[in-house]
Amino acid sequence: MGKEQVQAITKMEEDFTQWYTDIVKKAELIDYSSVKGCMILRPHGYALWENIQKVMDEKLKETGHENVYMPMFIPESLLQKEKDHVEGFAPEVAWVTHGGSEELAERLCVRPTSETLFCEHFSKIVQSYNDLPKLYNQWCSVVRWEKTTRPFLRTTEFLWQEGHTIHETAEESQQETLNILNIYASFCEEYLAIPVIKGQKTEKEKFAGAKATYTIESLMHDGKALQTGTSHNFGTNFTEAFDIKFLDRNGKWQYAHQTSWGVTTRMIGALIMVHSDNNGLVLPPKIAPTQVMIVPIAQHKEGVLEKAAELQTRIQKVARVKMDASNKTPGWKFNEYEMKGVPIRLEVGPKDIEKNQVVLVRRDTKEKEIVSLTELEERITTLLDDIQQSLFEKAKVFREEKTYIATTFEKMKQVAEEKQGFIKAMWCGNLSCEEKLKEEVGVTSRCMPFEQEELAKHCVCCEKDAKHMVYWGKAY
Amino acid sequence: MGKEQVQAITKMEEDFTQWYTDIVKKAELIDYSSVKGCMILRPHGYALWENIQKVMDEKLKETGHENVYMPMFIPESLLQKEKDHVEGFAPEVAWVTHGGSEELAERLCVRPTSETLFCEHFSKIVQSYNDLPKLYNQWCSVVRWEKTTRPFLRTTEFLWQEGHTIHETAEESQQETLNILNIYASFCEEYLAIPVIKGQKTEKEKFAGAKATYTIESLMHDGKALQTGTSHNFGTNFTEAFDIKFLDRNGKWQYAHQTSWGVTTRMIGALIMVHSDNNGLVLPPKIAPTQVMIVPIAQHKEGVLEKAAELQTRIQKVARVKMDASNKTPGWKFNEYEMKGVPIRLEVGPKDIEKNQVVLVRRDTKEKEIVSLTELEERITTLLDDIQQSLFEKAKVFREEKTYIATTFEKMKQVAEEKQGFIKAMWCGNLSCEEKLKEEVGVTSRCMPFEQEELAKHCVCCEKDAKHMVYWGKAY
Repeated sequence: MGKEQVQAITKMEEDFTQWYTDIVKKAELIDYSSVKGCMILRPHGYALWENIQKVMDEKLKETGHENVYMPMFIPESLLQKEKDHVEGFAPEVAWVTHGGSEELAERLCVRPTSETLFCEHFSKIVQSYNDLPKLYNQWCSVVRWEKTTRPFLRTTEFLWQEGHTIHETAEESQQETLNILNIYASFCEEYLAIPVIKGQKTEKEKFAGAKATYTIESLMHDGKALQTGTSHNFGTNFTEAFDIKFLDRNGKWQYAHQTSWGVTTRMIGALIMVHSDNNGLVLPPKIAPTQVMIVPIAQHKEGVLEKAAELQTRIQKVARVKMDASNKTPGWKFNEYEMKGVPIRLEVGPKDIEKNQVVLVRRDTKEKEIVSLTELEERITTLLDDIQQSLFEKAKVFREEKTYIATTFEKMKQVAEEKQGFIKAMWCGNLSCEEKLKEEVGVTSRCMPFEQEELAKHCVCCEKDAKHMVYWGKAY
Repeated sequence: MGKEQVQAITKMEEDFTQWYTDIVKKAELIDYSSVKGCMILRPHGYALWENIQKVMDEKLKETGHENVYMPMFIPESLLQKEKDHVEGFAPEVAWVTHGGSEELAERLCVRPTSETLFCEHFSKIVQSYNDLPKLYNQWCSVVRWEKTTRPFLRTTEFLWQEGHTIHETAEESQQETLNILNIYASFCEEYLAIPVIKGQKTEKEKFAGAKATYTIESLMHDGKALQTGTSHNFGTNFTEAFDIKFLDRNGKWQYAHQTSWGVTTRMIGALIMVHSDNNGLVLPPKIAPTQVMIVPIAQHKEGVLEKAAELQTRIQKVARVKMDASNKTPGWKFNEYEMKGVPIRLEVGPKDIEKNQVVLVRRDTKEKEIVSLTELEERITTLLDDIQQSLFEKAKVFREEKTYIATTFEKMKQVAEEKQGFIKAMWCGNLSCEEKLKEEVGVTSRCMPFEQEELAKHCVCCEKDAKHMVYWGKAY
């Protein structure tokens, strides 16, 4: 509720950033707090996260992962144990220096990620190959001290899940890393209706301390890329630093092989920037907290509210449904639930009751249809499926249209200047070319996709032999 | 797994504190971390919290509460807005002073509780009686800098839910405060099988900033009391400090009426200290992560593992069941799942298969019974119910036996010296008597129970007229 909601939001074509900010505020996903860079997740925003959590948690448990909870603090000396890791994270952590009125002997950082804590624990509980694998996950919040923040996309504190596993062999840890990436990808496509590119990060873009980082990348309305989830294979980088050894099947001491992986509330940012429009949020039915909103018409008239309640009871069996019987006008309610992205609006008034029908309105296409009450549950079920499918297809078409190919440096520069989207181009594998593309073209490598194509023989930047096809782009 | 498990644990009669510590470690509920006072919740410990969360979250949603997420940091100036509150919490908060390499202009504390953040948010989103009530809850961790810590009972960081609501009238906020206390009480009794005393805290023991605090108190094996959940009515203490006003039905500005309430991972400490024994953890079936553990006997023999797997599939429909087909000995497995508190062990070997039967062993009483396979699901269902009921009854009898009455100061002193348990005694309502009882008898007021009795006309401490019957005791 609130006065703001009936006001129009900024059009995305006019000011994409303001459009985004308007949506997160007016759909009541978030509010700002007095702590810079930290956001309040309001009921509608948190319910989205809960739905993401529910599905993801099931998928992780089905594949043998167990949830744990690690402390939110990491002693400075522990953070420093793996040198690439501390270099990557130390500049952006929050430091606790006092407990009550006493200064601490050693500073504690608020976890930016928990590899070091998991490693310390693994080193205590793993002795033999019998103790492996350990497939752990935790749901928590982490803190990274960011200079510039935007709701969901980059906030000082954010919610996520972080998985941490250790294994007997290099093959197993590699398999786990890729299995998780596939879980993330199918979740994005099936539930969030967001098509993703799966691939590997370059050395420059990989996680601090990882041997290899894999990613799913998706394309936003404005043509910018968003890293939507990552999965890291650490090899033995951390297990050597933390001395996590086990007696193998031949009675020899070996370092364990390790992975970590995570998705965050950022996914909600992707949801907004892939599906929403100038009337507000558009939510895929599978993730929408409310799938059908019943708005009674002329609700003061006899029988209307009773009928609406009766329909709610019927629909409950096939969908997440609510009724708004408040004294706001139907028009106000239409706007409110459009803004909040409820996939189907159901209108029922005296005339509909007479004719034994209701009106269904799709949020995504605004299409209206009259449905006989005898077909209600069936139609709602198929309509929700249709909406889910059609949002995915639309996003896929959009991404294809916004994916360009460049085989020369000039062409790449031109595309980057004139178009917004992914650019596919060949790369020699050298950091210098990656840096030149960033400086002179303004794009970063998003990933080396698993589905490689040979667009040319030579690197788009230098004349050396090409080693990989890379997706390049501007990114959040 | 691990070597420690087959070793016996300290007997509770010998050293209750060590018994408790042995259980939390050897049942693999927790591990210590390198941050003093913070614990690691291992899979078995975290699964207990997840089960508590699941039920409690449903109960809160059914009663109209919505989940949100507030930042983990509170600016010092915000914490100071309500004076009793800051006095209560400032001495025990962790202070963040640096973000990355920069010193912050204002210190941030890691939330010890989130009243101030909720108030700041409420003041922005509430304008009229139409906006009320707001019934919010959040699941998160909080930090209180404790000098002496014990797993689950008192830790620097702990997990909890904190509810925060605001209402139009004083009656509504009082009703909410008591409704929640009832939800907590019935959850404890029905799910955790822990009988509780419901009552009000004295002025001295109430929450910093509250008008009234209500509590559920339970009695541990060692005769000490544990505050297991609290619900606070703030009246307008915070809403005045934070200027949370709304236009009422008569068009006048009013301060909103507020509540807050919470339960924590402490409940797991209560579970242990109410039900467990010298063989390890005992878990009420309704909250046990695994309710039935299948241990195949002579599992190398033909048909045993297949039969065990077949039984698992059958039992899955009525209970949370697992099978341990590892190469550990049956004896080792028996000890392991006794230690971990699995309510029913199912043994099945070649002889049982021949006779079309299995052996069921209750964790709580160690009773063994032979059950025909034709009655398997039915018997498991009734047995789980029996165990749940009988744990509750046993705890209730224990509490009644350990509840004493004192009508004179001398008698009270004597009981407190000789016995361990609750002492019911009359009180005049004066702080001086409460303080004298603490200093000279060593007990604190646990609560003024809703079910009052007139044990005497006069205060047990002074000779003034008694106003309340109070439960007194030593407490965690």
